[in-house]
This record gives sequence, structure tokens and C-alpha cells, in this order.
Amino acid sequence: MDNRNKALEFAKNNQAKFLAELNEFIRIPSVSTAPEHKSDILKTAEWLTRQLAGIGMQNIQILPTGGHPVVYGECICARKDAPTVLIYGHYDVQPADPLDLWTTDPFEPAQRGDNLYARGASDMKGQVMASIKAVESVMQAGELPVNVKFLFEGEEEIGSPNLVPFIKEHVDLLACDVALNPDTGMIGPDAPTITYALRGLAYFELRVYGPEHDLHSGLFGGTVHNPAVVLSELIAGMHNATGKVTLPGFYDRVRALSAEERAELARLPLDEKHFLDQTGVSALYGEEGYTPAERVGARPTLEVNGLLSGFTGVGSKTVLPAYAMAKISMRLVPDQDPKEVEESLITYLKEKSPNTVRWEITNLSSGRPSISDIHHPATQAMVRGLETVWGTPPLYKREGGSVPIVGDMQRLLGVESVLTGFGLSDDNVHAPNEKLHLPTWYKGIQALIHFFYNYGQV
Amino acid sequence: MDNRNKALEFAKNNQAKFLAELNEFIRIPSVSTAPEHKSDILKTAEWLTRQLAGIGMQNIQILPTGGHPVVYGECICARKDAPTVLIYGHYDVQPADPLDLWTTDPFEPAQRGDNLYARGASDMKGQVMASIKAVESVMQAGELPVNVKFLFEGEEEIGSPNLVPFIKEHVDLLACDVALNPDTGMIGPDAPTITYALRGLAYFELRVYGPEHDLHSGLFGGTVHNPAVVLSELIAGMHNATGKVTLPGFYDRVRALSAEERAELARLPLDEKHFLDQTGVSALYGEEGYTPAERVGARPTLEVNGLLSGFTGVGSKTVLPAYAMAKISMRLVPDQDPKEVEESLITYLKEKSPNTVRWEITNLSSGRPSISDIHHPATQAMVRGLETVWGTPPLYKREGGSVPIVGDMQRLLGVESVLTGFGLSDDNVHAPNEKLHLPTWYKGIQALIHFFYNYGQV
Repeated sequence: MDNRNKALEFAKNNQAKFLAELNEFIRIPSVSTAPEHKSDILKTAEWLTRQLAGIGMQNIQILPTGGHPVVYGECICARKDAPTVLIYGHYDVQPADPLDLWTTDPFEPAQRGDNLYARGASDMKGQVMASIKAVESVMQAGELPVNVKFLFEGEEEIGSPNLVPFIKEHVDLLACDVALNPDTGMIGPDAPTITYALRGLAYFELRVYGPEHDLHSGLFGGTVHNPAVVLSELIAGMHNATGKVTLPGFYDRVRALSAEERAELARLPLDEKHFLDQTGVSALYGEEGYTPAERVGARPTLEVNGLLSGFTGVGSKTVLPAYAMAKISMRLVPDQDPKEVEESLITYLKEKSPNTVRWEITNLSSGRPSISDIHHPATQAMVRGLETVWGTPPLYKREGGSVPIVGDMQRLLGVESVLTGFGLSDDNVHAPNEKLHLPTWYKGIQALIHFFYNYGQV
Repeated sequence: MDNRNKALEFAKNNQAKFLAELNEFIRIPSVSTAPEHKSDILKTAEWLTRQLAGIGMQNIQILPTGGHPVVYGECICARKDAPTVLIYGHYDVQPADPLDLWTTDPFEPAQRGDNLYARGASDMKGQVMASIKAVESVMQAGELPVNVKFLFEGEEEIGSPNLVPFIKEHVDLLACDVALNPDTGMIGPDAPTITYALRGLAYFELRVYGPEHDLHSGLFGGTVHNPAVVLSELIAGMHNATGKVTLPGFYDRVRALSAEERAELARLPLDEKHFLDQTGVSALYGEEGYTPAERVGARPTLEVNGLLSGFTGVGSKTVLPAYAMAKISMRLVPDQDPKEVEESLITYLKEKSPNTVRWEITNLSSGRPSISDIHHPATQAMVRGLETVWGTPPLYKREGGSVPIVGDMQRLLGVESVLTGFGLSDDNVHAPNEKLHLPTWYKGIQALIHFFYNYGQV
């Protein structure tokens, strides 16, 4: 039996062990946005170093950043001309709230049927473990066919504020031929997927301030502009009747979709019914003139991620609130620039906000959109790996989510990223009852094993 | 010394005792909207029965309702033709949140300068105690000049949902010639005030439901209508550019202001500067064509009292929320009807809400507007009492707040209400750092003593 088959065999025989280790990883609630979870972040980083040591990695380090640390480990193989793969992942997770909507504890993985339910199971502790377990299987089988470097950050879910400076400082350590990023998912369990473009992000908190303190709505209502009403009016003005974003200049740098690309996107199984089934809404919404697949993948959007003002408890309180807050984020497509989008938001607010209130915005997170070369040898190595395991060639997709690191690696390390992953679109990532489809996860480990041998050409 | 002067003297000599008793009353956090304070509500009711017993009231009872109980006590004087005054008050208070904006504990009264800071100090534990202490002073001086009945409810701050059925059941017990309601305030410490009209209230919770659960804003943003955006658009459409409420038929039953009434309202010291000073805003807002005093007193308004959707914690979470909630209330003026206003809100929502979401509203509280006869002998007895103490005739005011019980008593008991009170417009009622101006409170007790003797004509 050759090494490739030995590795595939090892992975098959060790599924129960891999799953038990994934469960350990998930149980540490590494919520990066919550200060009270800071020690869990550190525990998770330490846990990862033990994982990397356990599979035989070298030069393992917990590297400080301006925020949560980076975990690094590498294995440089004997063969001199072997290419180097930098495997990117993040070990932090989204907050689990609203907790009351979870069927089981978000940080106690629960297997029901083929799925494992937990925060981070799909995004992306499952994907991180798939890549570690694939490397483990390959190392158990013999010589590594490629050099491997692992880079796991702890701040992806808060917009990776310290990753760019980190990469700049560690350009030599991170030198590689290609990055592998398993943080994008599959369109369905039978549809392995290569993502070749990602949307960027510009995430803001907008606060509108009215009176100095909450007022009695009876004694003052009618004389003071209600900041919750003003905020609602500002938000309402951000889309027009055709679903377009109205911020001045918002579309100026948006790259138009070519006819070829529209044809490719039309082949994806992302029709109206797909989105209706996934979301449970009675009717879809979106920018006129584009299909749902185009809207999520290739068009920029603006969403309200949160609203808060005044009294929100049970019952009634007749308050005229002192301020109102909205979290507002835009998904960006090539060649939009988060800085320019921030300026257009500011221009909009200056034009539209009345003199009865004052407002301020805070940029909470931003990342550039990116687009990759699908003909790269590493991408093609992954394409063949996916095809071998699933028996069908992968789909090529533009992804609606944001992975700013892809553009950053192009810029700072001069490398393309292979974007794949084994999460499914109904995994409830960033939502209650996040889950991982285990049969797909096991297949994903097999596909990654093939990738290493394909790319190393052994 | 006659009884009136004896009573006035007693009140002057017992200010420290009165204040200590008010502090005891305030320390029980009788927040009616919060289920966790239910036992405090009962404690407060029991505390009040001890107060009433202590000053010599009879037939003291804690009477059950469908919600928090009513406290009752009476003293029927010897004189056969004495008129009966039903003194209304509420012993419940608003929630104290946001707690971080309080300088001192909201339920531990703190005296700073002339003011006593605490939740309920002004609205309306201070006013309840002023009326009890005035009756105590009169009884200490000799025979009561009028029959007195006390009715203290525990649900005013949640819209008195059980008071109308309670009054209907106890019409004989509550029989009286006039009601005294000290829940409306004074325009300033030197401006005693009689309120002759009150706005009504219609308070709703509006929920807009989108996807079945929170979605990843990258993976779904652009295909699903964001319920926080839809809610904002619905709210934005509720006012037009001239500050008018756009709900269909909203103004149909609004009684137009007469030239005489506008002239009377123009004499109130409620000019633009007053509202700017009270609120700290840089510019006022409101319905075109009306002065600030008219807008708060005699015109209906619509306010957003609360907003909640999606992620509202520190940092960023890229969620497309499953639902969005707003607390929305309207202040009503004669002859608007809360039921009709609810229908016009429903009509508006049916017309304006898109088919991409569903919505529901809950009526949390409602009360009719009211307007009273200022020539009633009891009102004139209070007018003379206020003039005696302050040395200036009181102002006549239309009040922006809502005291639905006034209209209910007209309808169910056939009596007018004398509306006064010793709270000031800068008391921060329903807001952090609520306070009571103690010199005004002591004067108020004196004025109430005069009222009893004036009305009893002894």
C-alpha cells in the first residue's frame, strides 16, 4: 500500500478519535468578542499547541499580537523542492446568543443523526481539525509530500484587527507557495466547492444621540426629536425601492459581472428555492436585476446587524430614549474599498441627519474583497482531490462571506489561497444550533489528504 | 389657634418625620412591570396599610385585582353633609434602568441640596405621602372637614390594566363627590399648577419577523429582507416631513384648539428655551404650526420607546437578525379613542409592510384622553389653597402625560378629578436620577391642608 492509501486508511480507522478531539476543541468557549472569554481564548491556543505537538509538528509557538495570539507550527519535509502550504484557520468563534434558541448547550457538542451541534462546529473548529487530522494522517503514513505551516488566529470573528501587522512582522516565518484556507463551505453535501471570490466587509456602529437623558414620553413627546425615530429614518433611507444601497458613490468601484461569470453562477444550485428553504422566509428580497446567487456572491449589500434603544424589557415603559444604536455592515465586492465605503456612509449621514440630534460612527471591522486565480496548481490539486472523493468535479463559487485574510495574503505574502471547506450552507453558522455534517467532514479529511499528495506530486 | 392653623403647624413641625417615612416608602422597590419585584409590590401595599392605620384611617384593606392589589382606607367625619374626597395615587414605580446612569442607588434615597434623589421620589411616592401627611396633619388638629377615601393602585406604570374592573366592582365603596389626583406636576417651583386635560395613551409592541433564525449576513445578505431594515422603514414612514403622524385617520377625532385655549397655553412658561434647557438638545422638533406647549399638551404624538434586534453587545457580529422589535406608543388628545388608533396602526402596517416579512402587534397599555371642568368647587378649593401657600394664582395646564384613571372616574363614578401635584418638570421622572424638590413638597402638604378646609368650608 502506498503512502497516500496508508494515510486515507489511517483517517478512516480513526474517525472516532478525530471526533473526540474535535469535541474537546469545541468545549472551550473561545468567543473572541467577549472580554469575559479571554482566558478561554488562551486555553484554546494552548490546546492547539498540544494538538500540533501530538501530530509531530515542530517550531510550535503561541505568538503574541495586539490582541488574541496566533498559534503557529510547521513541518518541513526532507525533499528539497517540496512546495510549502500555509494552512490558515481561526480558533475563535462567534458569541452563542441568543442562548434560548439553542436546543442543546452551544459549548457541549451534541450529536443528533449525522450532525454535530455546537458553536464553532462548522465555523471553523471543524475545518481547523479537518486540516490537522489530514496532516496527521499523512505523517502517520510516511514522509510529508509538501512542507506544512499552520497559522491559526484568534480574532477572525472580530475582523482580524491584528493579523495584518502580525503577517508583516513574520513574513519570513510564513513564507510559502500557497495558502490553504478551509473557511469557505460547500454548496451541498454532494457538491464540493472551490470559492474563488470573497466579499469584503465594512462594519460600523452608528449611534444617534438626542436628549441628555431618557425623557418621559408624555411630558416631552412632541417637542424633542426621538433618536430611535431618527435612526430608523436614516436606516430607511439607505436602500431605495429597487433594493439598491443609496450611500453616495457606493457602486462606483463595483466590478460589473461578465456574461461568462453570470453563466457560471447560474449553474450553481443556488436558486430561489434554495434560499427559501434555507431561511424559511415567504419571499426573497434583493437588488433588482440580479439572481439570488449573484446577489449574495457578486453584489455588495448593506445590512443592519443589530438595533438597540430605550426600553426593551417585558411590558411598557413610556420613555423617550436618549440615544439609539445600530450595527450596520456592508459586504463589499471587487473593487470596493472599505475606507471609501466608510467615507460614503459619513457623507450620507452628514447629508441626511437632522440638526435635532448628533451622531457618531465607529468602524468595528473592515476587510477588502478578493478574487483568486482558479488555474493555480494548488487549486487544481484540491479540485482533483475533491473530485476523487466525491466522484464529481467541484463547483466554482463567489462567496458572500468575508475572509479578508485572502486579500491580505495576496498583498503581503504574494500568494494565492485555495479556498474550500466542508461546512454546508444550512450549518447555521453565526446563529443558534450551528452544526457540522459529520459524513461530509470525514470526506473532507480524505480530500485534504489527496490535496497534499496531488500538490506534492507524489 | 383654629384647626386649620393647628394642622399647618403640625405639618411644619414634622417635616423630618415625614421625610423619614417617605424614605422608608421609597426603599421598597415596587417596580410593577418586573415579575421579580412582585413581593416588593406586596410589601409596599402592606407598608401603606400601616401608614393609613397610623394616621387613624378606618376600613383599611388590601383589595385583590387581576394583578397587583389596591390599598384602600377611609375616614368618614362626624358632619353629615361633608363632601367626600377620593384621593387617588399609585404606589408602583417605573424600572430604574439604565442603572449605570444613576449617581446613587435608585432605591436608597439620597438628599443632595434641596433635592431627594430616588426612583419614585417624584412619580409618585412623594405625592402619595404628601396627601397622607396632609390628612394626618388635619386629623391631628381635630375633626376632618371632609370625608376622605384613599385608593392606591399598584399598576399605574404598566397602564392600570385592572383598575377599571376594580372600580366597577367597588362603585359603592368608592362613592365620592370628587377625586383628588396629585399625579400631575408643577411647571416650576414658583408656579403651582392645575392640570385640566390629560393625554391618553396607546402603547404597542411591534415585532417584524424575517428568517426562521438569525442568518450569517455574508452568506444570506442580499437575498433575504432584513427585519431590522423593514422595521426601520415602517417606523420612518410613521411621520411625514412636517412632523405629522401618517397613520390613516389618526387626526380625524382630534379636537381643534380654540383661540382662547391657545392664548391660555401661550401664557405658560413652556417656551422653546424651557424645553431646550430641560432636555439638552440643540434644537427642538415637532408638528409644524404648533408651539412647544401645544405640542406636548394638546396635540397627539407617536414615539418609539424602544428598539431591539440582532446583536447589540460590544463588538461586531455579522448576523442578519431573525426579528426586530419596537415599542411604539401614541399620546392621544380629546376625542381620540385608543381602540381606533390601534385600528389605524394595523391599517398602516397592512398597507406598508412588504410580503417578505410577517409582523404582529401587541397592545401593552391604553388609556383615554380627558378634559376637566376648572370651575368645579373642589378645583377652586385647590386653586385657593395653592394661591395661599405660593402667593400667586396657579397656572392652568394641559398635560402631556397620561392618567387614564381620570377619564375612567368620570365614566364610572361620575366625578371630576382635581389634578395637581408637587413634582417639577425637571424631576427626571421615568429616567435616571429622578428627584423630588423638598421645599416644594413641604409647600404642597400645606396647600393640601388648605384644600381640605377650603372644600369642607370650615
